[in-house]
Amino acid sequence: MPLSAYRQFEPALAYAAESTERTMDRLIPKGDAGEARVFEAMRYSSLGGGKRLRAFFVLASSTLFKVSPSSALRVASAIEFVHAYSLIHDDLPAMDDDDLRRGKPSCHRQFDEATAILAGDALQALAFEVLAHEATHGDSAVRAVLVAELAKAAGAQGMVGGQMLDLLAETQPDLSIGAITRLQRLKTGALISFSCTAGAILGKAAEPLRAALAAYAHDLGLAFQIVDDLLDVEGDPAELGKATRKDADAGKATFVSILGLERARSQATLLAQQAAAHLEPFGGPADLLKQAAKFVVTRRS
Amino acid sequence: MPLSAYRQFEPALAYAAESTERTMDRLIPKGDAGEARVFEAMRYSSLGGGKRLRAFFVLASSTLFKVSPSSALRVASAIEFVHAYSLIHDDLPAMDDDDLRRGKPSCHRQFDEATAILAGDALQALAFEVLAHEATHGDSAVRAVLVAELAKAAGAQGMVGGQMLDLLAETQPDLSIGAITRLQRLKTGALISFSCTAGAILGKAAEPLRAALAAYAHDLGLAFQIVDDLLDVEGDPAELGKATRKDADAGKATFVSILGLERARSQATLLAQQAAAHLEPFGGPADLLKQAAKFVVTRRS
Repeated sequence: MPLSAYRQFEPALAYAAESTERTMDRLIPKGDAGEARVFEAMRYSSLGGGKRLRAFFVLASSTLFKVSPSSALRVASAIEFVHAYSLIHDDLPAMDDDDLRRGKPSCHRQFDEATAILAGDALQALAFEVLAHEATHGDSAVRAVLVAELAKAAGAQGMVGGQMLDLLAETQPDLSIGAITRLQRLKTGALISFSCTAGAILGKAAEPLRAALAAYAHDLGLAFQIVDDLLDVEGDPAELGKATRKDADAGKATFVSILGLERARSQATLLAQQAAAHLEPFGGPADLLKQAAKFVVTRRS
Repeated sequence: MPLSAYRQFEPALAYAAESTERTMDRLIPKGDAGEARVFEAMRYSSLGGGKRLRAFFVLASSTLFKVSPSSALRVASAIEFVHAYSLIHDDLPAMDDDDLRRGKPSCHRQFDEATAILAGDALQALAFEVLAHEATHGDSAVRAVLVAELAKAAGAQGMVGGQMLDLLAETQPDLSIGAITRLQRLKTGALISFSCTAGAILGKAAEPLRAALAAYAHDLGLAFQIVDDLLDVEGDPAELGKATRKDADAGKATFVSILGLERARSQATLLAQQAAAHLEPFGGPADLLKQAAKFVVTRRS
């Protein structure tokens, strides 16, 4: 059944994850050519794991505008390719130096550093190839907007800029809450915003509706990150599939180090409620997205 | 004066380089935000050097179809951004481990590895952002084709796939000439092909004319690579701005190691002549591209 038939968030998320993975699997090159090692690394790091929240946001926002599921799945896949590439590069020794990702060896541990760099590079290119392809939308103007918006969200003034700030933050334990908010808005918020507004772009929605989804994404993205910081302190490494207390041990400024556990938790809850409130114009059909806001602050991994 | 007014290749190449650099400079983000370090690294590695052959191919192929110079310059910039990103990542310690690029410290030597990885990532995103933007072409269908074709040329079944093959080739000194040809067609040929056909895409050229440019690019790309191998053996490190004899010292199979100097040289000359012959349908207006084929095999850097 299509996502719009789901009433409960968790099965809807599972459906989004499974259907997006199937689409991603079809889109990653296959074969036994000499260069197949890079296909394998792309496959290893982008399939078989992850909550697929970004994919869910694309599919759920698409149901609001009667977008064809096949279009939405391609856009969801493109975003998950960008997300996967960013994790591969973030895990590299020169960056966060993480050996574990989603409970298995990170890409450069499973393959090698060079292959990991290349797999990330190729996943980014694949995302744009998928968006630009006719199968993604019949109107080329829509495809061009999708490419432009994802490129902005992923680039130096979006995700990559946020990652740069994050690396520099390691030597700035006295970062202000405003600076951390901006960092996270770029590092994770930009891609989440694109995910939540993708349905509106695909459905050629009126500007106020697109703006409502952007406002939802803005508050939800920040709530998501605060909870990430909470999980880094309070989470269970086994459930998370990665090491915890990395930020605290590095003496890095986070929402939790500045606000404390209690205030960080209540701030996340408040933001999630605010996020859901932005969805009022959509009424009942936005129920899944409202539930997602709740999930983001109650998740344990 | 526009490129079409030039009669001689070398001043035309200089004009293409200079006008594309000006456009690239405008397109890279500026400012003093916290993440500006990544802007600086993007700027450092993509401006101020390089022959800009790929940019020249875009501009020269565009003159054949009366494409507006501003459109051509944006596409030329996008390709040079992709080329620059690939050099930054290729130079990383985990890849070719080069300290020098165009006579100055490579990106990770000038900044650091993490910044270099991020600058490459951001340059790739910027390329697609530029192509998808309305200013690149009034017809969104053309913009979507440009994005799709560049993504294919840059990705796992193009440039990145070729780079993967190249890394694996280091342990395969007995590679066949067919395998090396395929490696190079992917690693450098795909992007050169896109550069040479970009004018046809922008000008909505008839298929036989696009195919003629693709055939030109195919032969010229191979000639270019054979000369690269020759320069690695015979070139002057000072003129090249990088170390030579890297492949020979690594015991790597190249066109020169298999064919020998003499046969490699005559093969490159033959391919360049063949490349120029593909341009007959265009007559006089393709003179600059014909001269470029000659330049590719006589260049000393």
